[in-house]
Amino acid sequence: MRTILVILMVGSVLVSSAAAEARQLNLMPMPAALQMQAGQLVIDPAFSVGISGHSDAQLQRTVERFLDDLRRQTGMPPLDMKITNPAQATLVVHCEHETKAVQELGEDESYSLEISAAGAKLEATTTLGIMRGLQTFLQLVQTTSDGFVAPAITIQDKPRFPWRGLMIDVGRHFIPLDALKRNLDGMAAVKLNVFHWHLSDNQGFRVESKKFPKLTEMGSDGLYYTQDEVRDLIAYAHDRGIRIVPEFDMPGHSTAWFVGYPELASGPGPYQIERKWGVFDPAMDPTQERTYKFLDAFIGEMTKLFPDQYFHIGGDEVNGKQWDTNPQIQAFMRAHGLKTNQDLQAYFNTRVQKIVSKHGKTMVGWDEILRPDLPKDIVVQSWRGQDSLAAAARQGYRGILSYGYYLDLMWPASRHYAVDPMSDGAANLTPEEKQRILGGEACMWSEYVSPENIDSRIWPRTAAIAERLWSPQDVTDVNSMYQRLDYVSRWLDWLGLTHNSSYGPMLRRIAGSNDISTLRTFTDVVEPVKDYTREEIATVEATSLSPLSRVVDAARPESDTARHFADLVDALIAGQADPSAKQEVRTLLIRWRDNQSNLQALGTQSFLLTEIIPLSQDLSAVATTGLQALDYLDRGERASDDWATQQFAVLAEAQKPKAQLLLMVAPSVQKLVEASSGQKAPSPQK
Amino acid sequence: MRTILVILMVGSVLVSSAAAEARQLNLMPMPAALQMQAGQLVIDPAFSVGISGHSDAQLQRTVERFLDDLRRQTGMPPLDMKITNPAQATLVVHCEHETKAVQELGEDESYSLEISAAGAKLEATTTLGIMRGLQTFLQLVQTTSDGFVAPAITIQDKPRFPWRGLMIDVGRHFIPLDALKRNLDGMAAVKLNVFHWHLSDNQGFRVESKKFPKLTEMGSDGLYYTQDEVRDLIAYAHDRGIRIVPEFDMPGHSTAWFVGYPELASGPGPYQIERKWGVFDPAMDPTQERTYKFLDAFIGEMTKLFPDQYFHIGGDEVNGKQWDTNPQIQAFMRAHGLKTNQDLQAYFNTRVQKIVSKHGKTMVGWDEILRPDLPKDIVVQSWRGQDSLAAAARQGYRGILSYGYYLDLMWPASRHYAVDPMSDGAANLTPEEKQRILGGEACMWSEYVSPENIDSRIWPRTAAIAERLWSPQDVTDVNSMYQRLDYVSRWLDWLGLTHNSSYGPMLRRIAGSNDISTLRTFTDVVEPVKDYTREEIATVEATSLSPLSRVVDAARPESDTARHFADLVDALIAGQADPSAKQEVRTLLIRWRDNQSNLQALGTQSFLLTEIIPLSQDLSAVATTGLQALDYLDRGERASDDWATQQFAVLAEAQKPKAQLLLMVAPSVQKLVEASSGQKAPSPQK
Repeated sequence: MRTILVILMVGSVLVSSAAAEARQLNLMPMPAALQMQAGQLVIDPAFSVGISGHSDAQLQRTVERFLDDLRRQTGMPPLDMKITNPAQATLVVHCEHETKAVQELGEDESYSLEISAAGAKLEATTTLGIMRGLQTFLQLVQTTSDGFVAPAITIQDKPRFPWRGLMIDVGRHFIPLDALKRNLDGMAAVKLNVFHWHLSDNQGFRVESKKFPKLTEMGSDGLYYTQDEVRDLIAYAHDRGIRIVPEFDMPGHSTAWFVGYPELASGPGPYQIERKWGVFDPAMDPTQERTYKFLDAFIGEMTKLFPDQYFHIGGDEVNGKQWDTNPQIQAFMRAHGLKTNQDLQAYFNTRVQKIVSKHGKTMVGWDEILRPDLPKDIVVQSWRGQDSLAAAARQGYRGILSYGYYLDLMWPASRHYAVDPMSDGAANLTPEEKQRILGGEACMWSEYVSPENIDSRIWPRTAAIAERLWSPQDVTDVNSMYQRLDYVSRWLDWLGLTHNSSYGPMLRRIAGSNDISTLRTFTDVVEPVKDYTREEIATVEATSLSPLSRVVDAARPESDTARHFADLVDALIAGQADPSAKQEVRTLLIRWRDNQSNLQALGTQSFLLTEIIPLSQDLSAVATTGLQALDYLDRGERASDDWATQQFAVLAEAQKPKAQLLLMVAPSVQKLVEASSGQKAPSPQK
Repeated sequence: MRTILVILMVGSVLVSSAAAEARQLNLMPMPAALQMQAGQLVIDPAFSVGISGHSDAQLQRTVERFLDDLRRQTGMPPLDMKITNPAQATLVVHCEHETKAVQELGEDESYSLEISAAGAKLEATTTLGIMRGLQTFLQLVQTTSDGFVAPAITIQDKPRFPWRGLMIDVGRHFIPLDALKRNLDGMAAVKLNVFHWHLSDNQGFRVESKKFPKLTEMGSDGLYYTQDEVRDLIAYAHDRGIRIVPEFDMPGHSTAWFVGYPELASGPGPYQIERKWGVFDPAMDPTQERTYKFLDAFIGEMTKLFPDQYFHIGGDEVNGKQWDTNPQIQAFMRAHGLKTNQDLQAYFNTRVQKIVSKHGKTMVGWDEILRPDLPKDIVVQSWRGQDSLAAAARQGYRGILSYGYYLDLMWPASRHYAVDPMSDGAANLTPEEKQRILGGEACMWSEYVSPENIDSRIWPRTAAIAERLWSPQDVTDVNSMYQRLDYVSRWLDWLGLTHNSSYGPMLRRIAGSNDISTLRTFTDVVEPVKDYTREEIATVEATSLSPLSRVVDAARPESDTARHFADLVDALIAGQADPSAKQEVRTLLIRWRDNQSNLQALGTQSFLLTEIIPLSQDLSAVATTGLQALDYLDRGERASDDWATQQFAVLAEAQKPKAQLLLMVAPSVQKLVEASSGQKAPSPQK
């Protein structure tokens, strides 16, 4: 262990010393160690790659794909930039051996990259490290006055955690294969290595089973992946250094199974595909041998389809109601000394784990599965937090963190970025216990995502989570993160991700017009409500049949404009704003104040605008308040308490969610009012 | 003939009367006849389609695709909007019979569409008409205060010409299959029905031949379509009501053939794939029987691969130099009484025509092939103009017009729109001769296009050409065209066309920064130079190896901003501008004047900006001039002759191409100077 620790420390030191220099580098995740050098490497049409050392088809494809990416980024035609003899190549790629046919947890992803004015060398133990290093190379390429260049640099890089994942729930809303592929491209770009595919839920069963065809025939609305498509995606992921871990959620979250196979359930059928969101009663019957017979055959089929060593059985959120009301199940519990539904679920998990193990796989499940009678090789995925993860680690279980990484909660990137798998309860683990914390996973639960807006929920925020899981623990500068995130976000456009490009078309649909300047001004400063508020305050219950075409579906999870405005206001109040920054605050406030009259006019032409008019009025009112506060500050005159009280009321109203949106510039205007009046805004009422 | 003429006239009358009402409809091409009705049909999640009458797999796919498009447009999930029983359906689709397995020239594309508040009915003879009518339906769907609606309307529609094409040259720059597919989607959206695939040229041979594998092995740089891919694209096109006509250009434009098969050429080899643009010497040897033996086998293979009745042999631009210098060819000409190279090419064409005919196909070629000894069933594609087309028609030959529809010449949509196949020489043809004018084709020659910018060269301008070829001849209102073109351009975004979405990423690459506001302000008001000026004024010769990443490659063929500015200035000078329009002119001029200092600063950070700085300086100078002129006009004061002379010099300089770009706002500023000074600008020097 000591060796590893020393290397990590050295890595940290190097990063710290390089961090200031590296500010202008657009690397994300930040490498473990880097050293800027003098000079730069010009990337022109003569650029070439040579493969020395081990070579195989996967490595060839990796380099071809890298060249495609580099050509796209620089606008070079396919006739330029070739694979050539290593002796003549601009970039020499050298790896020692191939990756495993089935990528393994903890397989070596390290690489070293050396770029000088004369050329570049990328070395790695396996093709996996080459994949990671080539992404770093792409991120280094910049447009400069000398042409496209990569700065001279030395990088020694390796991941902090071996399990760095993204989960996508395709059960609640089906996400087609092409959308998954572009998201896998995005994952590879930020060095994530596990795609956790949540394949079944109450609202849909999404994988073809040859043994149990009614699972999709009756449980998918025709929206599922064939086994050929699954194999295609697995190969696609493998080529990008990404493992695919399938999840089939059981014994709860399984209504879609019961539509075709009601005999699996604990209550009488028939069942329908669930259209609503939430936790529902149907659960598998853990007391019937036919359940295990079915699962044995099903898991046998699926473990052959999915080559990864890990197999996720879900195991979360069983409300137990069907068990409580089924006399046969109650009798079984009494007969076997199972006192609680948790005991019954533990019994189920033990049985299922044996099946998974029999088929040669290692079981993964959510927090709830953890019971000391399960073997130590299982992996716990924690939505509960680091304490839960630490408790598991102390008991000898490996775990991955998803608490703090739920993308559907619409948190800002900075909040995800602050969540570290090794913090809180995990901070005091022994080195051996810490080894059991494998990493984490960003989770895209899909109640409110469609192929159109899913990318905007995943990206760019997931890049910040990817950095948390790859980079050294002390890489925590939020300003630097946002600066690089902005670059990465636009860089991901080259891969066909639609988080930026879908915004305009969605706004045009909402506006019913090509002129969306007014609507964009509004939408740029709002965010969808956070956590589970969207359900809580809904006036009409959302279902899987609800169109996702509202402003709340187009608005970004995090308003860059509001964040920028907040920075300006903070500087202004601190007396650190230059005249142009002061002017920008005023210009923004005037634009927001005047936006409402245009939006009101537009509102009469589109039903999708009606709901946002009250919040647009709030924006106008808040901006008016802000301008008045600015005038006080400019004049050096203290605003009256009465005025401040009035404005705080305006601001309190404006901070109430409307149309399931939050007005993100209100808190900064509140600061202006506070600064101009010397008054503190009353705490918001709960 | 009389019946047809009467119907056409009735159609025209209906259009004229409906034209005013139809202004706010975003239909393009405008239908032959339409009548607005009272009311509207709401399009909500319950919307459904029923198929009555004939049904087959192609029609089912057509309706499924329509529903996908409608869902995308309206943001509905896949669970909404279904195919259902016609008795319950919102939209009933009724067609009498299927389309031909191989789509034929002149196959019935007519349809009638009736929409009322209660429902809609689409009727057609064949699935082709249904395809066209469903596109019309999609264009009618609008966002309104009542939800998504289609207005109540009655439409009787059919095309004016049976051959409405788009040619894409994949020889000079290879265009991958996915880019072709999205362009086929665009074609279907505006009712084009022929994709003319220019598959070979000096710079590349792009189709796999099993009989002559060296064609692609040595002549394609590895950039070609396999036969499976060709079949895939043909099926894709057929499903969208589009014929695919392949072109293999011969005997000239054929260097790429000779790399693998030098024995076909008229001069000694070896040959290399051509990297430059232009007309080159290599040509097939028309005097050798082995040439025809090769072509017989090759055409035999290709006519099996491409099912369309028409087969394009190119036949353009043979410079004859290889023939002049080959003694054996000269001897052959003397022996056969062939006096000129044109005679020799005619001999070649006659031989090739017999081969094409033997394989059951009808030959198509460019203007040059037309010689009276060819049979009357061939089709002439005219790049020379309507007179040439008319001459052919008088001789009994059918023809299609491409003169005036060359997209690579960077003309504004209005200029293409004004070109009518039946004008000029063709206007005085007899009705029988007019029947021989089959239609036209927009042509995308690819010297300066890549997969990244090709869509922006084709769209939206091709939609205006599509209207010219589909709609009645009297649909010519340019303002209405531009208004609808703007809508169609954004509507095409839903199909994944990248003419709008590629602009931002290209500018970001050029700027080397995410902040492209300054660069965009500049690029929005410039256009690439017109016609063949790009070659003529190039300081470095462009080749197929040249990156297409300059501002000239990102700038749109037509500047919407400049056109809008021209409209504002015209209104202002005519005394018809309201205060807000006057203010907008001033605001734009101020922005352009001040843009240069920011762009200059940006320019130091990117080599791709250096070349535009002089034109950006011109923009600033021109805007300064415009502001001064505006001041004179505002004050009602006449500007001095000296001042006007000075400004005309500034404007003359600013209208010289720089960085192969034209400053499109200069002519409007010139008008302001003329109006404020009463002076006329001197005519530009040639």
